[in-house]
Amino acid sequence: MSAMVDRLALIGIGLIGSSIAHGVRECGLAKEIVVQSRRAETVATAERLGLGDRYTTDATEAVEGADLVIVSIPVGACEAVAKEIAPALKPGAIVSDCGSVKSAVVRQMQPHLPAGVHFVPAHPVAGTEHSGPEAGFAALFHQRFCILTPPQGTDATAVEQVRAFWQALGSYVEIMRADHHDMVLAITSHVPHLIAYNIVGTAAHLEAVTESEVMKFAAGGFRDFTRIAASDPTMWRDVFLNNKEAVLEMLGRFTEDLTALQRAIRFGDGDALFELFARTRAIRQGIIEAGQETAAPDFGRPHDGEAER
Amino acid sequence: MSAMVDRLALIGIGLIGSSIAHGVRECGLAKEIVVQSRRAETVATAERLGLGDRYTTDATEAVEGADLVIVSIPVGACEAVAKEIAPALKPGAIVSDCGSVKSAVVRQMQPHLPAGVHFVPAHPVAGTEHSGPEAGFAALFHQRFCILTPPQGTDATAVEQVRAFWQALGSYVEIMRADHHDMVLAITSHVPHLIAYNIVGTAAHLEAVTESEVMKFAAGGFRDFTRIAASDPTMWRDVFLNNKEAVLEMLGRFTEDLTALQRAIRFGDGDALFELFARTRAIRQGIIEAGQETAAPDFGRPHDGEAER
Repeated sequence: MSAMVDRLALIGIGLIGSSIAHGVRECGLAKEIVVQSRRAETVATAERLGLGDRYTTDATEAVEGADLVIVSIPVGACEAVAKEIAPALKPGAIVSDCGSVKSAVVRQMQPHLPAGVHFVPAHPVAGTEHSGPEAGFAALFHQRFCILTPPQGTDATAVEQVRAFWQALGSYVEIMRADHHDMVLAITSHVPHLIAYNIVGTAAHLEAVTESEVMKFAAGGFRDFTRIAASDPTMWRDVFLNNKEAVLEMLGRFTEDLTALQRAIRFGDGDALFELFARTRAIRQGIIEAGQETAAPDFGRPHDGEAER
Repeated sequence: MSAMVDRLALIGIGLIGSSIAHGVRECGLAKEIVVQSRRAETVATAERLGLGDRYTTDATEAVEGADLVIVSIPVGACEAVAKEIAPALKPGAIVSDCGSVKSAVVRQMQPHLPAGVHFVPAHPVAGTEHSGPEAGFAALFHQRFCILTPPQGTDATAVEQVRAFWQALGSYVEIMRADHHDMVLAITSHVPHLIAYNIVGTAAHLEAVTESEVMKFAAGGFRDFTRIAASDPTMWRDVFLNNKEAVLEMLGRFTEDLTALQRAIRFGDGDALFELFARTRAIRQGIIEAGQETAAPDFGRPHDGEAER
């Protein structure tokens, strides 16, 4: 594939930024990659991994002359970065991000970006429990969805360029309104993370059950929750602070439903339990058919008797 | 390994029973395996898979002359089976089970078993989201814990025989009191399943988000919950009906903690969120070190761009 972008600036080089770098290199999508992180140590790691062509801790310097700027940082830091890079952006440049929340990011970044710069907010719905530049890999985005939420009036050509970029990285691209995105992700991602973090916290604080017992017997189901509860704490704090309304709405529904289940258990209503438990299998099947999950038992965890370490 | 058991009767031949059959065959632990299921169709499948030496739908016939009887059926059916097999049990036989709840199973089975028969309740803490005789495989129990909860006064030799049996299948064996088991499993297995079933149900009932959107964007975290929410509905209905007190206790704590998190989100208390999110990583690390989880990103799901189907 010929390069789509002359100069790509990656602001932030964690799991997402470094995976973009790997993908862009693999597909030759950019002639030059400039890698930026606020932390000198992270920049040094990125350089050791060969993720870019130039490296800097200075966001202003990084975006100079860039045609495409992708900001992959915790959403709580987006406003400050928008302010910082705004004066240095090249006219006609496209600015995009990878935040898991879209309305708040648009609200916080857009007012600072100069006229003539195109802002195309994006959210690649992909990730692992690992973070940092060493965690990235090109296949992270393969067959995953990337959601674009361009504000009304965004230049259509810029949107198409961002779409083509993510498609080249192997993703399916969808376009929707920022507020709808935030509602969809509240239930498919934010609330799941919150309840995973929560149950791991609950388990750690029991008097009757030791932490060592929780760890030993985790194969009964608990361990599935610990994967997402091992995700980056800063990123997730910012998600909840910036998608408050949608998360509280979905959490309210979750709690209402859980209270009904609790009542069914208390009064021994086996039919109500069975009815729910039988329905939920179909949803998983749909996710497998959408190519978003593996059908192998146990997510395809190793079953050879040798757990990986 | 020389056979430990002359005649092994497997009452129920679902995921657990069939995995035992595979393991016993692989290690030559029994001279003869008698396979029983109430459903003729399931017996036929077991026979096609070659899981036993003899097959029957009649539990009484299955246990005749057996030295070890392992009951692997939904816990709600244990009492009826205990009554049914009791008259046919050979004096000196060991009866064990695989139920995920232990106090209720002991209460329901023990009174019916004749003197001279040894009852050693067991719970292999292992499983997948698949069920039925075709889902079984010998490695299911490798490096997993099997918990024995022998009632006070149980013959020590019988307990040791069951311990040796599970160790031969590749498991680590722990002994504890039935009520403690039920508390530990409530938090490590039962409540996780309940909240997984619950969030999948909540997601299916939204007006603002379509089921197709839930499926497409599940890679944001939701899909991890769907694995255990695809588990056998009958088995899980019976778990909740039979471990009511411990589940309600743990669920109460979970909800209390979740309410605190909800309040932290509402009032923008980022420090409280960060503090919890940072702590939970350590628990996952402990589970990986205990050999109960893989450290590979995303549970080692395929990342080659080809989702398995």
